[in-house]
Amino acid sequence: MSRADRFLQALAGQPVDTTPLWIMRQAGRYLPEYRATRARAHDFLTLCKTPELACEVTLQPVERLGVDAAILFSDILIPVEKMGVPLTFAEGEGPRLQPVRDAAGIAALRVPDVEGELGYVLDAIRLVRRALDGKVPLIGFAGAPFTLLSYVVEGQTGKQFAETKRLLFAAPELAHRLLQKIADTTVAYLGAQVRAGAQALQLFDSWVGQLAPEDFSAFAAPYVKQVIDRLTPLGAPIIYFANDGAMLLGEAAKLGAHALGVDWRVPLDRARAQVGDQVTLQGNLDPCVLFAPPEVIERRAADVLRRAGDRPHVFNLGHGILPPTPPEHAEALVEIVHRLGQRRS
Amino acid sequence: MSRADRFLQALAGQPVDTTPLWIMRQAGRYLPEYRATRARAHDFLTLCKTPELACEVTLQPVERLGVDAAILFSDILIPVEKMGVPLTFAEGEGPRLQPVRDAAGIAALRVPDVEGELGYVLDAIRLVRRALDGKVPLIGFAGAPFTLLSYVVEGQTGKQFAETKRLLFAAPELAHRLLQKIADTTVAYLGAQVRAGAQALQLFDSWVGQLAPEDFSAFAAPYVKQVIDRLTPLGAPIIYFANDGAMLLGEAAKLGAHALGVDWRVPLDRARAQVGDQVTLQGNLDPCVLFAPPEVIERRAADVLRRAGDRPHVFNLGHGILPPTPPEHAEALVEIVHRLGQRRS
Repeated sequence: MSRADRFLQALAGQPVDTTPLWIMRQAGRYLPEYRATRARAHDFLTLCKTPELACEVTLQPVERLGVDAAILFSDILIPVEKMGVPLTFAEGEGPRLQPVRDAAGIAALRVPDVEGELGYVLDAIRLVRRALDGKVPLIGFAGAPFTLLSYVVEGQTGKQFAETKRLLFAAPELAHRLLQKIADTTVAYLGAQVRAGAQALQLFDSWVGQLAPEDFSAFAAPYVKQVIDRLTPLGAPIIYFANDGAMLLGEAAKLGAHALGVDWRVPLDRARAQVGDQVTLQGNLDPCVLFAPPEVIERRAADVLRRAGDRPHVFNLGHGILPPTPPEHAEALVEIVHRLGQRRS
Repeated sequence: MSRADRFLQALAGQPVDTTPLWIMRQAGRYLPEYRATRARAHDFLTLCKTPELACEVTLQPVERLGVDAAILFSDILIPVEKMGVPLTFAEGEGPRLQPVRDAAGIAALRVPDVEGELGYVLDAIRLVRRALDGKVPLIGFAGAPFTLLSYVVEGQTGKQFAETKRLLFAAPELAHRLLQKIADTTVAYLGAQVRAGAQALQLFDSWVGQLAPEDFSAFAAPYVKQVIDRLTPLGAPIIYFANDGAMLLGEAAKLGAHALGVDWRVPLDRARAQVGDQVTLQGNLDPCVLFAPPEVIERRAADVLRRAGDRPHVFNLGHGILPPTPPEHAEALVEIVHRLGQRRS
């Protein structure tokens, strides 16, 4: 058992030498080496689309922090652009897309040819796998269908999600048509990632917590299940992260994912009570705890481990690491989890 | 039993002729008559601070919709300004405050003299009570201490709440000092509202859902309990709304509130299972359901009523009504709830 194995072992529910961890957005602005690479790219999308640069930033936290998995540096909207939704990122702001809200707009969207149109993502995966040389596994990822729908419909990161829900509640058949196109795209996109070398997959459902359970069941869960069912034969374990989904975990556990990401709002013992024993839990330290001194980080990380108990667990933050985080605090977290996690082996 | 009584009866856990309802932000931009009054005020804060105008918009939804309670038109940041935190509202944007993040800044904040400095709020309450003439009760309100802390520390509506949590996790004693000052202000402010004529109170904890349960217990719950304990002798029932607080409801039920607001994410039967039988639940239709046709509104409202069952319930949306809502859909909701709610009497 070594650093190379423990992440995939934990996803498989197998014993591990210590609790594995990785950090959502571990390649990011809190790292000076990321900011240096970013400065060499024309803009954020160029960074995502240039395999050598995407590979470089993907590897940085593996080197500096000693995390147990790499995750491809990219953005969940990359495949959406190729569905026919023009995408820009203004500096210091979120994404902007040409919103699609009607039948004609939805009909005009297409499932991209991943090998032909998103080859830079697959090339980045191949470069990373070669550079990692088996040191740790590589995670590929995509946005989950409901979350991608929300970006397509809102044209930006939603606030009240009024346009999204107007579509769901007032024109549900159109919403389903859009969700199916996104699901087809996601299956093609993640399947190609696995064939290029991704060894595990995460589906980010960043905004699904905006849905009441009834609407989760109608508009989110069926497409997550479909994506997982169609990808499972490829053999890469799949993590489903239903952010802010405290009331959704019980149903999320039935969708076939090997692991469920849990945000910091749901203590892992309470999450476990909802999901049963057949799934690995991933999470869930509040990212802002990394602003505190190392003794606070240790106390809070120990509490996460205690609540995870002896059930399969991948340590992570409960949301992406924030730009103001001191990198040495992220380093401290890795040391703490690997040290305290050993009591569980 | 009549429209004048059913809201307070439901808060007291007493039988009602039909389910009472009011709507968060019922006086607001979705109403053309609100927009007309708003156009006569120089800006949003002037509207809040001019008793005649605040009274006028407070009454509008009582007339048009037939809701069972009025709620004073104001903003939760009004008392914060008088603590010594300069406040502005830019058109089309949220509030902007001079952020307070250190010991000196917190020490400089003061508990305002409510009668002397916030008399316009009390005058508005007196005007509304006179105009209502017993037709329906009037709700006063304030932000809950943690939510107000987040505005004071962030200087605006938080996104990641990084500065707020930095204070909580890295300087908890400072956070407690600030929370105590806010709690003292809130007690003075709400006490004066009751003396001026408010017949029920709501504490809005709009951002408390950002906290893990452990942090809710440390930084939010004790101050909510203190505020409620100190106000309870005045006799006005208190509603506590812990927005996005799916995991917090069990503890929230122990803070002495007569009622708990529930956002749309938590079906009321699941909420009831967490809170026991001693509290009225208020909520919780997704505000975006009001974008859908009336038959969808009826189906969804019926589901809320079904989940509320025969336990004490005040119907509301699970969050504030949104500006794009057709007013006639809000009118339809009131008719639907009053009609379907009768089966419960």
